[in-house]
Amino acid sequence: MMDEISVRYFDGFEGKDLVNPLMIEGLPGIGQVGKLVAEYMIHMLGAVKIGEIHSIYFPPQVILEENGLARLARNELFFFRAMGKDLIFLVGDHQSTSNEGHYLLANQYCEIADELKIHRIYTLGGFGVGHLVNEPRVLGAVNRAALRSELEEAGVTFDRDEPGGGIIGAAGLMLGLSAHRGIDAACLMGETSGYLVDPMSAANVLAILSKLIDVPVDPTKLNDRASEMEKVIEGLVEGNKTEKNEELSYIG
Amino acid sequence: MMDEISVRYFDGFEGKDLVNPLMIEGLPGIGQVGKLVAEYMIHMLGAVKIGEIHSIYFPPQVILEENGLARLARNELFFFRAMGKDLIFLVGDHQSTSNEGHYLLANQYCEIADELKIHRIYTLGGFGVGHLVNEPRVLGAVNRAALRSELEEAGVTFDRDEPGGGIIGAAGLMLGLSAHRGIDAACLMGETSGYLVDPMSAANVLAILSKLIDVPVDPTKLNDRASEMEKVIEGLVEGNKTEKNEELSYIG
Amino acid sequence: MMDEISVRYFDGFEGKDLVNPLMIEGLPGIGQVGKLVAEYMIHMLGAVKIGEIHSIYFPPQVILEENGLARLARNELFFFRAMGKDLIFLVGDHQSTSNEGHYLLANQYCEIADELKIHRIYTLGGFGVGHLVNEPRVLGAVNRAALRSELEEAGVTFDRDEPGGGIIGAAGLMLGLSAHRGIDAACLMGETSGYLVDPMSAANVLAILSKLIDVPVDPTKLNDRASEMEKVIEGLVEGNKTEKNEELSYIG
Amino acid sequence: MMDEISVRYFDGFEGKDLVNPLMIEGLPGIGQVGKLVAEYMIHMLGAVKIGEIHSIYFPPQVILEENGLARLARNELFFFRAMGKDLIFLVGDHQSTSNEGHYLLANQYCEIADELKIHRIYTLGGFGVGHLVNEPRVLGAVNRAALRSELEEAGVTFDRDEPGGGIIGAAGLMLGLSAHRGIDAACLMGETSGYLVDPMSAANVLAILSKLIDVPVDPTKLNDRASEMEKVIEGLVEGNKTEKNEELSYIG
Repeated sequence: MMDEISVRYFDGFEGKDLVNPLMIEGLPGIGQVGKLVAEYMIHMLGAVKIGEIHSIYFPPQVILEENGLARLARNELFFFRAMGKDLIFLVGDHQSTSNEGHYLLANQYCEIADELKIHRIYTLGGFGVGHLVNEPRVLGAVNRAALRSELEEAGVTFDRDEPGGGIIGAAGLMLGLSAHRGIDAACLMGETSGYLVDPMSAANVLAILSKLIDVPVDPTKLNDRASEMEKVIEGLVEGNKTEKNEELSYIG
Repeated sequence: MMDEISVRYFDGFEGKDLVNPLMIEGLPGIGQVGKLVAEYMIHMLGAVKIGEIHSIYFPPQVILEENGLARLARNELFFFRAMGKDLIFLVGDHQSTSNEGHYLLANQYCEIADELKIHRIYTLGGFGVGHLVNEPRVLGAVNRAALRSELEEAGVTFDRDEPGGGIIGAAGLMLGLSAHRGIDAACLMGETSGYLVDPMSAANVLAILSKLIDVPVDPTKLNDRASEMEKVIEGLVEGNKTEKNEELSYIG
Repeated sequence: MMDEISVRYFDGFEGKDLVNPLMIEGLPGIGQVGKLVAEYMIHMLGAVKIGEIHSIYFPPQVILEENGLARLARNELFFFRAMGKDLIFLVGDHQSTSNEGHYLLANQYCEIADELKIHRIYTLGGFGVGHLVNEPRVLGAVNRAALRSELEEAGVTFDRDEPGGGIIGAAGLMLGLSAHRGIDAACLMGETSGYLVDPMSAANVLAILSKLIDVPVDPTKLNDRASEMEKVIEGLVEGNKTEKNEELSYIG
Repeated sequence: MMDEISVRYFDGFEGKDLVNPLMIEGLPGIGQVGKLVAEYMIHMLGAVKIGEIHSIYFPPQVILEENGLARLARNELFFFRAMGKDLIFLVGDHQSTSNEGHYLLANQYCEIADELKIHRIYTLGGFGVGHLVNEPRVLGAVNRAALRSELEEAGVTFDRDEPGGGIIGAAGLMLGLSAHRGIDAACLMGETSGYLVDPMSAANVLAILSKLIDVPVDPTKLNDRASEMEKVIEGLVEGNKTEKNEELSYIG
């Protein structure tokens, strides 16, 4: 019988001599904010892939890459050695399709963190507000009260009313499950409409995360993408206004 | 692999020398009636927390507390030593998200009752009738016929036609599963609309439960909350009438 | 951890000296046809209860009996010693709520048949046709080709086009799973609208089953119930016609 | 407890001396394209059945054959010895009803391929485009980049944008899971509307597969069926046009 979840490290990665290791989780979710941030960092820093996670809790399909190559849905681990600290990134195609699978996968991610002696996890996500946000804040949550002030100093907002519904999926569960293992964890959530992939929100999360972990990441390309997106949205809003005016002109 | 259900007692709680112990279950459900009663009792009596239950059958999310602290969805156990008897309360954020999980969790709750040598379980809930109820009754169900008269003397109604559909979730399953372990159990269900959190219904359940277990609980604050709720509803009903009158005035 | 399925025989039932034992399954299903037949036979023959089956695959609720007694959803086994043969009845409140549970429960029922050395299983059900049926036929299916002629002689119809969609749930799966154990099994399906509990269809199934197993069962009460039902339906149809005429009279 | 998946080889099939064995999977899916191709090949080549697969992940029902014989939903394995190579066909009634079951079944199919020392798997399917296709292409996917050119030479199209959503079910998962076992696999997907069983699309897949494996299969009967289908569709389209004209004539 197949393993419900399998973790495979690539040859050459030992994982034993990590220096002051942090984990950064950016799996798919609201506005793809977490995924955008983590994948952008991997790209800009030139992090190297060290392993893969497969699971029967992912959707039962293969992903087709551009060259016609099919591969299983997966999560991936990347490694980057920064000044005085090592970063482990957790990214991927999907989260669990079932409730129980969410717990089992998040627990596996924490198990990996445990094995690699990670002392701090940052989980990244979007916080959907249901409307366009002009100046999206970065909301925070922590799994130990003492972590809060550090995040606030970096510009994270702790709003006592938000997010009221809790944090769903890996970004949330990893906070709860890592606490039980004695690993510090914080979640950074970029405000976002929830309707669109949101590089603007991601740029804000990146800025704060970069400050928090003290690893500089050139934000130019993400900001560019955010600017493009902003123009697209302005275009849509303008178009919408024009349309409404035209509708009015039919009446008038 | 993570445990499907984990029970953790806090240090210092032995659970071995309980005196005449009873269990009171008040998990979320219709009108939040059971939850309101059990949490109110915990608050008013000053019961102390003795343990926690976590499970992959709870929704896959963390709960955010006001200080930005995230924690896993959980059930909690509280303890209160009353005159001549010990009370164990079972409360929590959620019930199971799956059918099978409902059984496995309810069985775990009964396992706890067994370990603590509980001789009587009271499960609390709401009975949704689909409309506002002026004088909500407290309906009962038992897992041994001989328990019925005692409940009736305390004011519980046994209506042969209600609740026709059975009792869903922990409040029901614990009756069935504890019977198989030889533990007496009764369910108290406050009539409620099913649309609103219902402190009025909860106050009635509290009055009867307090009598049944012979542990006085000052009902003032719950009654106050019920009165406030009653005014809110009256306001809504008045508003509705006014609205209807206004609608009529458009016609007339 | 709780057993996924538990079977408990009552004290006093040995199950070892059964004479020429047959099993008759009548669990809830379309038109409640199978349930009506099996429960009627149990009642009229005075079969005695010999055991119970509980499972986490049943709906997560307790059933309330008229006296306020709550009990777990269950399946039940009854026993009746007829002339030269023993009958084991399988009836109950529910079938599985999940696909996998259907297989696991049906396999457990066949395991019971195996233990009791049952040499023939009759599964009973309704075949929904989507409209009222004046003279409902009894359709058949078998798990060994040689069984067919015996059923046809007793009045069972084998229609090559029906039921096209296969037979869902225990009545079907027990045929397939018992074949793998070398136990003969046949399914009798009474045609029924699928919208109503159908004692007419059940009466037809009873007549044929009684002939097949050569155990006389007085059908009077079931026929009476069928007649009553027929009047109710005629009333509904009449009312419907009248209503339509009245509608026409508005036009004319 | 029942096995979640069971594989049974028929007596007489050893599976040990296979010559250059290939596996061809054609389970139910979009347009039934894969199923049509594989079952047509089995029929035309006279492949013999060598085994069956049953699982609790299939729908919980039995299939009724024309003679009234009921059997469990199943997958089947067929064997054909061609010139210089052996073909193993995997066909069947159903795929999994659950996400996890899809993974577990596909893994079992690959386990079978492993046991039989299969060195190449062809999975067959349809690629739904949402509209009628005049000249349906055969799209491809592979689990090792080097396989692509061979497929392209045989007429398979690799379109970098399609199928964008990945390949769902066994046809896809077997590519991913067999790669982890070191078995080459390719998927051939016939373009199809997705609304109808599509022998035209199947005929195209057959032509290419036949070339790829160098096993001639007379396509006449499948082409005939495709022609008939084409006429049916033309009739529908004509009828539709006429209807529209008639609608217009009411107006004109």
